[in-house]
Amino acid sequence: MQKQDVLDCHERIIPYIHQTPLLRSRLVDKEIGTSVYFKCENFQKAGAYKIRGATNAILQLTDTQRKNGVVTHSSGNFAQAVSLAAKNLNIKAHIVMPSNAPEVKKIGVKEYEGLIYECAPTLEARQAMADKIKKDTGASFLHPSNDTNVIIGQGTAALELLKEIPDINAIFCPVGGGGLIAGSSLAAHYFGINCKVLGGEPFKADDAYRSLQSGKIEGNDSVNTIADGLKTTLGDKNFPIIKKYVNKIVRVTEEEIVAAMRLVWERMKIIIEPSSAVTVAALKRDAAENPQEYTGKKVGIIISGGNIDLNDLPF
Amino acid sequence: MQKQDVLDCHERIIPYIHQTPLLRSRLVDKEIGTSVYFKCENFQKAGAYKIRGATNAILQLTDTQRKNGVVTHSSGNFAQAVSLAAKNLNIKAHIVMPSNAPEVKKIGVKEYEGLIYECAPTLEARQAMADKIKKDTGASFLHPSNDTNVIIGQGTAALELLKEIPDINAIFCPVGGGGLIAGSSLAAHYFGINCKVLGGEPFKADDAYRSLQSGKIEGNDSVNTIADGLKTTLGDKNFPIIKKYVNKIVRVTEEEIVAAMRLVWERMKIIIEPSSAVTVAALKRDAAENPQEYTGKKVGIIISGGNIDLNDLPF
Repeated sequence: MQKQDVLDCHERIIPYIHQTPLLRSRLVDKEIGTSVYFKCENFQKAGAYKIRGATNAILQLTDTQRKNGVVTHSSGNFAQAVSLAAKNLNIKAHIVMPSNAPEVKKIGVKEYEGLIYECAPTLEARQAMADKIKKDTGASFLHPSNDTNVIIGQGTAALELLKEIPDINAIFCPVGGGGLIAGSSLAAHYFGINCKVLGGEPFKADDAYRSLQSGKIEGNDSVNTIADGLKTTLGDKNFPIIKKYVNKIVRVTEEEIVAAMRLVWERMKIIIEPSSAVTVAALKRDAAENPQEYTGKKVGIIISGGNIDLNDLPF
Repeated sequence: MQKQDVLDCHERIIPYIHQTPLLRSRLVDKEIGTSVYFKCENFQKAGAYKIRGATNAILQLTDTQRKNGVVTHSSGNFAQAVSLAAKNLNIKAHIVMPSNAPEVKKIGVKEYEGLIYECAPTLEARQAMADKIKKDTGASFLHPSNDTNVIIGQGTAALELLKEIPDINAIFCPVGGGGLIAGSSLAAHYFGINCKVLGGEPFKADDAYRSLQSGKIEGNDSVNTIADGLKTTLGDKNFPIIKKYVNKIVRVTEEEIVAAMRLVWERMKIIIEPSSAVTVAALKRDAAENPQEYTGKKVGIIISGGNIDLNDLPF
């Protein structure tokens, strides 16, 4: 993946995405101790950055492949993103969702005309059903995070941030399946000026932190975190990029996640989902522990999304 | 109040306010049946449009008056706005707040270095304490809505909206004390092209609706509404403007308010307070009842603020 691949991808997907705004807050800067730039992918189409990677991956399919549609499994934002990206390009989207997926996410998929297939809430059941659909229909399988085209697509949010603030000193991303942080770290490598990339992860699903320590992809024994988007683990396509280009992963407690979510909702008046709050909490923690690295600096945060069930809030 | 007064006011306050963004949502347009432009005063300093009027009023004080500070009574956004506006201009703000004011609003006032005086939760007690402070300190009293300088200041949000979308067909505002809608209707009169101005009001605090019907300022027997910013009644300075320039006031139920709040939170990922949701609900109701007046039109909404207690949400 070269510099030009990222630029080409951005140009390719621009007609299908929003160029989301960068927001700032004096009060948040004061609370955290650095100048923070929020890249608001919660305002992105379908409510999250995932439309970027989904659109890029679908645009790379051949005409024959497009005729057969796409299939993915997701309990969350990627399901909505693939449905909308496919609808925008007039192709069929088969979406495998676990039976316990939040109702609000199912409604989102239906609104974008994705075809929902319910399965048991295990990764095995999801993969098995997606495999069957692929076999039956010839649909192309799209992985939410471990796919080169998806990774490059997700990195375009950081690319836009770097175009707007070229001298930004660091970018924070949440780490779930690893697609966003891998893509962002590529963008920072090619377009930043010594721009660090840091990840935020819940202590309760810290597989990426442990993977960087051990040097191999680790799993999670349990994932009892409010950050429902960050329960997945890294893949063989994104892990090498993360190893090479990500500077550090900062872990945070559930209490820190909820406090960060409240800070942003109250101070900035924008809805961010818990997975995005993880990233704010990680920046806050790292800035408190290493103030010398943040005072007078500019830090970007990829606010990954704003999809949350209002019936199930932590406050 | 002439056209030039509004322009002068805007120029005067620009260094102290945000030029807030206009946001749009395809899904909201579809749901409502017209093209809606959200003027996001929830992103304004201190979280609401009120900083506009407060700043304008304070900037009109003489140097001697400024030395003695300002005093107001408010349970809500105006308290924070006056505190911040005064802090920005290096003068003292005495803020009378009812003892039952939400904790989050008191914290806001303290952060902006306003001096809080608690009183019994009645309008009489508030006014009495404000009068006493005025007498003791020589501070100038600022009324949150029935003050010409405040009215003109609040109208600058609509002015910005009209500058950006000159051919907008209508502007919706919430109606509480009447300052915002009076100022907005002046702006629409001077700068719009046949731009209508409509107000949104809860059935449970519909004093302005009844005032326009009877031709005199009416009160509310009770104000049992979630829209805590709209419990106040009109004043002798703003009512004549409202009578002259406001086209219609649309009343909505509590259920419609909560549904509109949910619509905006979920679809647009921005936090709006119940008083702003009233306005969205009023547009939705009026567009459903009179679709011919909305199809293919452009409608602005002044999203008045985003200050809400997250411990006390309706969902």
